[in-house]
Amino acid sequence: MRPDDQLRDVSIECGYLEFNPASVLYKSGRTIVLCTASLESSVPPWLVGKGKGWVTAEYNMLPGSTSPRKRRDRGGKVDGRTTEIQRLVGRSLRSVVDLESLGENMITVDCDVLQADGGTRTASITGGFIALALAVEQAVPGSKIGDGPLKDSVAAISVGVLGDTCKLDLDYELDSAADVDMNVIMTGSGRFVEIQGTGEEATFDDAQLAELLRLAKKGIADLTAEQIKALNAVLENK
Amino acid sequence: MRPDDQLRDVSIECGYLEFNPASVLYKSGRTIVLCTASLESSVPPWLVGKGKGWVTAEYNMLPGSTSPRKRRDRGGKVDGRTTEIQRLVGRSLRSVVDLESLGENMITVDCDVLQADGGTRTASITGGFIALALAVEQAVPGSKIGDGPLKDSVAAISVGVLGDTCKLDLDYELDSAADVDMNVIMTGSGRFVEIQGTGEEATFDDAQLAELLRLAKKGIADLTAEQIKALNAVLENK
Amino acid sequence: MRPDDQLRDVSIECGYLEFNPASVLYKSGRTIVLCTASLESSVPPWLVGKGKGWVTAEYNMLPGSTSPRKRRDRGGKVDGRTTEIQRLVGRSLRSVVDLESLGENMITVDCDVLQADGGTRTASITGGFIALALAVEQAVPGSKIGDGPLKDSVAAISVGVLGDTCKLDLDYELDSAADVDMNVIMTGSGRFVEIQGTGEEATFDDAQLAELLRLAKKGIADLTAEQIKALNAVLENK
Amino acid sequence: MRPDDQLRDVSIECGYLEFNPASVLYKSGRTIVLCTASLESSVPPWLVGKGKGWVTAEYNMLPGSTSPRKRRDRGGKVDGRTTEIQRLVGRSLRSVVDLESLGENMITVDCDVLQADGGTRTASITGGFIALALAVEQAVPGSKIGDGPLKDSVAAISVGVLGDTCKLDLDYELDSAADVDMNVIMTGSGRFVEIQGTGEEATFDDAQLAELLRLAKKGIADLTAEQIKALNAVLENK
Amino acid sequence: MRPDDQLRDVSIECGYLEFNPASVLYKSGRTIVLCTASLESSVPPWLVGKGKGWVTAEYNMLPGSTSPRKRRDRGGKVDGRTTEIQRLVGRSLRSVVDLESLGENMITVDCDVLQADGGTRTASITGGFIALALAVEQAVPGSKIGDGPLKDSVAAISVGVLGDTCKLDLDYELDSAADVDMNVIMTGSGRFVEIQGTGEEATFDDAQLAELLRLAKKGIADLTAEQIKALNAVLENK
Amino acid sequence: MRPDDQLRDVSIECGYLEFNPASVLYKSGRTIVLCTASLESSVPPWLVGKGKGWVTAEYNMLPGSTSPRKRRDRGGKVDGRTTEIQRLVGRSLRSVVDLESLGENMITVDCDVLQADGGTRTASITGGFIALALAVEQAVPGSKIGDGPLKDSVAAISVGVLGDTCKLDLDYELDSAADVDMNVIMTGSGRFVEIQGTGEEATFDDAQLAELLRLAKKGIADLTAEQIKALNAVLENK
Repeated sequence: MRPDDQLRDVSIECGYLEFNPASVLYKSGRTIVLCTASLESSVPPWLVGKGKGWVTAEYNMLPGSTSPRKRRDRGGKVDGRTTEIQRLVGRSLRSVVDLESLGENMITVDCDVLQADGGTRTASITGGFIALALAVEQAVPGSKIGDGPLKDSVAAISVGVLGDTCKLDLDYELDSAADVDMNVIMTGSGRFVEIQGTGEEATFDDAQLAELLRLAKKGIADLTAEQIKALNAVLENK
Repeated sequence: MRPDDQLRDVSIECGYLEFNPASVLYKSGRTIVLCTASLESSVPPWLVGKGKGWVTAEYNMLPGSTSPRKRRDRGGKVDGRTTEIQRLVGRSLRSVVDLESLGENMITVDCDVLQADGGTRTASITGGFIALALAVEQAVPGSKIGDGPLKDSVAAISVGVLGDTCKLDLDYELDSAADVDMNVIMTGSGRFVEIQGTGEEATFDDAQLAELLRLAKKGIADLTAEQIKALNAVLENK
Repeated sequence: MRPDDQLRDVSIECGYLEFNPASVLYKSGRTIVLCTASLESSVPPWLVGKGKGWVTAEYNMLPGSTSPRKRRDRGGKVDGRTTEIQRLVGRSLRSVVDLESLGENMITVDCDVLQADGGTRTASITGGFIALALAVEQAVPGSKIGDGPLKDSVAAISVGVLGDTCKLDLDYELDSAADVDMNVIMTGSGRFVEIQGTGEEATFDDAQLAELLRLAKKGIADLTAEQIKALNAVLENK
Repeated sequence: MRPDDQLRDVSIECGYLEFNPASVLYKSGRTIVLCTASLESSVPPWLVGKGKGWVTAEYNMLPGSTSPRKRRDRGGKVDGRTTEIQRLVGRSLRSVVDLESLGENMITVDCDVLQADGGTRTASITGGFIALALAVEQAVPGSKIGDGPLKDSVAAISVGVLGDTCKLDLDYELDSAADVDMNVIMTGSGRFVEIQGTGEEATFDDAQLAELLRLAKKGIADLTAEQIKALNAVLENK
Repeated sequence: MRPDDQLRDVSIECGYLEFNPASVLYKSGRTIVLCTASLESSVPPWLVGKGKGWVTAEYNMLPGSTSPRKRRDRGGKVDGRTTEIQRLVGRSLRSVVDLESLGENMITVDCDVLQADGGTRTASITGGFIALALAVEQAVPGSKIGDGPLKDSVAAISVGVLGDTCKLDLDYELDSAADVDMNVIMTGSGRFVEIQGTGEEATFDDAQLAELLRLAKKGIADLTAEQIKALNAVLENK
Repeated sequence: MRPDDQLRDVSIECGYLEFNPASVLYKSGRTIVLCTASLESSVPPWLVGKGKGWVTAEYNMLPGSTSPRKRRDRGGKVDGRTTEIQRLVGRSLRSVVDLESLGENMITVDCDVLQADGGTRTASITGGFIALALAVEQAVPGSKIGDGPLKDSVAAISVGVLGDTCKLDLDYELDSAADVDMNVIMTGSGRFVEIQGTGEEATFDDAQLAELLRLAKKGIADLTAEQIKALNAVLENK
């Protein structure tokens, strides 16, 4: 059994789609998300002429990603959970982008879940950042994290309370059993971007909050290392 | 100017609509939300025969609540922000309800914003709880908070970082200027229900997080006192 | 019991919302409608450059306005009754507006029903006219009814046949029992704007029609007096 | 030129579609409406087991019925005018049906406008009644108007004010020029079913109202005669 | 009984609607389709300034065209079969149009099925071509087929396999019994435009394919003769 | 350059998703489709109690599968092309299924295009069949093709005319240049299931048709061999 403070195995395959170098097949345990970043040299109407760019995200689970099969969002009503997740992914990615440096470019990061075993929203942020970084490299070649459109890196992880224990990186089974579930999004330099802690049928106290944050920081540090390693491998090969 | 750790003035008018005793006109400064709880003696299909009830919420801003006028959500697409807020309100209210004790009843809490000056989601939770408590009184007369369907009370408040300062209860002007915005939802007994901290273009560190949580706890305590006072005034008059 | 030719009590609160002087809380007995008029200095695409303005209206019942709760129109399908009513309100208001004098301005009058006890459409017209007049005052300060964008005032009332009796101003209970229901919309100077008489399961003859029109004229005269009194109170205070 | 109190030429072709005897091609001048009544031996869910039937109507203009071409209502939003008209047609037809005598049957009357030259809603009611009567004959063979599910006949006509003149049966050209437009729906026995008089940019007085009603009664009497003649021709041939 | 290689009776009435000369009432046996072509002197946005025109088609079955009644496509979801057919009709018509010669004009061909007895999509193409040709005459007067915007004529017919027999022109009864159903669209000069052969629960072999194509060619030749005859009758009368 | 009668390289990975053995990653050259078949032990309402099953398919292109990015179908309007393709895939798969032998089970085959380089609809059928066969193995273990719910195998390929040449298996570049495009769907035993030949701006003659069919038969034979090889590899390992 995985220790309470250890991540699931992470696998990152950059350039998964031959037609788009900014495509990443991101795996966290059995969760698989295909993250593709598409660069357009135009911005939404409300940004035209302002000399800055935009970053947005879309999230979707393929019907075959779960059992039983998940219905497609085709009736004109994107379900509330999907909307909420893709807004979160977009906000998180924008938190590390200097939109002025990006110029009048727009990057859309699509996170399509091929297989879902818990943690798809945090995988979408962590994997989505890598796709974003690869697309930024297309827009502003040679820029580095901290020196160019990317002010920092960003990653996300879930933590939770199960009975008396706090645990890092909940898969589907742990997530279903958790009393409290918290998603923490942080930059590579260790600052908070977003904290979302929820206990639908439970509540939590100060001590539990402190422990959850401690685990999350450890997880984020490990994920940041994986992101940098994957990006360096690609960029050095150029 | 309001001190950094002081709430806006709160006004609570129970039974605002003659036809529904579980209707509350809740004002926090210039923000006005009409919260009405409707009780039905049936449950959604997926709960039938399980011997428990359900609580859900809907949130909406009237077109005249903002300037310029806000368009109605009528095109079949409820906007992402609305969906996100009403899911939050519903989750928060359910966190203090013992659905088994409620019996096969469903309570829908509608939060319609008549005037918006920041903090409409937290007002919806704080005011919505009062409407919920009044509807629970209809379903299970004589029950008390902590002894009946309501396990506890719940209230919500926003806190934020503006430059170097942390502030309690952001109105629209403060909210627009804030670098970091956090909504904290807590029970009357002081446990966390939900924490949502976001810095779209900024990030925050451990010290700021600690100060934000301290302010939030103070605000929640003050709101809880207002809720109890308003509810007691109604229930004693019965 | 209210005499057959007497209106319910009317209450008119102008400037109900602090952020919008053209907001009116209109009560007719237990029916409560919040009417807000929003002024924009632009017109719909098909009017651009024609040197005239536009007035339109939207009507909506809040979920808590009725018991049982009314579902929101969010599925992309505004129900037929709502569509019909808001078209009627818009047409009625435009009948007294000189769109050329309004200039290239657009006024949207929102009529949101907070509590429904019959007569919500006529209340929307009568209260909506007051909100409209207050918004016209913003667009063309100092203009008077009959001398400026407003050619006249407009008000509306329902009349009906119950068994052998014709009655003025049907509340929900009367409306449900009525065989014939007629809405009459007239100007302050006593001309007809619109007559809509319907007997879904009944029909009516010439004598009944004459009596219904007599009652309606009396009601309109009384409402016109209330409108003028409320508007004068606001405008004199400026 | 047609006299002020004379109808356009009416042509009624019963059994226009070989597959459905209750199909009527109704022409009023150049306005052409195909009315088909479909009988089903079931009722809407809310009427099941109540021992009574239902009658409803749908109205639609074909794209080629006007110039320029009218777009189809396919975007999930039936336009307000269409909704309003089909509700009116349904109400008018139901006003002469004894739903108990109809048994648990449902009749849907479709009014599809092939060519539009004004008066399509009144043509839909007048022609729709004939289709309805033919479908009632299928449901309850041998029943007569006044003795069976049909309590009476119903017909509709428009009248209007053009400058100083009141005119019967407005075609498109007259309708466009009219200051006031009124649709009158009456039974064959001369009672009012519905009156809808509107002056979007104009208003009207008592004398004009009286003249409009006089013209309408004459028109309805003429249309009733045409309806009876057409129905008798079909029913005698059986 | 109709021989295996004989068409149903065809009837073509050009100028069926007084307001639009490019309107055709096309009958093939008991199938009746009203085809109207509407000419606009503008093109879709993606063609503006390219010096060429566009031709598109819409297909619809009226509710009364079948028994039981067919529901209208109003829920915002055009059903798959309708979409497929109207795309086919549009493609088929465009295959014989020289869009450059058409100039910046757009022609929309509406095919509304008044009565459906099988073969409505092929009737829409065959009848739609006639309406198209009449609209082209409005856009480019005096042009001839083969010399102007129309490079050729186009017609369509169905063929099918029933047990051991191949048959031309399937009506509803034959179509329901057919194991294989094929629609063939050809030009007047005998070239293939489109072949769509389908056997949902059956399959077919080379010999059957050859016989189906032989029958289709015969049918197309007969339909082409009817089209030319009808068009000549109109154009000679000008 | 690939010879005119040679397929692109095919790669088939069965069991691509750990949670669903009936998942296939199908590659034809650079086109990549993820086909997952989901088995449910219930049938659509219209089949309940008939003792037979159902097979249906859905098709979708991920936004990142093309450049520029393809928008998601979320506005409540699935585009015409998508609808047409998924109906084709469903029909083609059902043509080889004995729905009675399947029992009251439903199989949904999802074809999600990860990368699109032409031929996505034929790849969906060819890969979708493999996923279907794996799901049938779950429903009726041990059944074989030709002896159980699967009467035969099915595969699909495109052929086209480019100038004077007929070519097998069009990738995006060839497809864009083709004058005529034909999709041929055949069973493993060599019978036609569906033929769809289209020349939007061109037409074709008998000789071209014959050559296209010859190429298609060769391609189908090669694909059938690949399908059988992949399925045997999985089934022998059980």
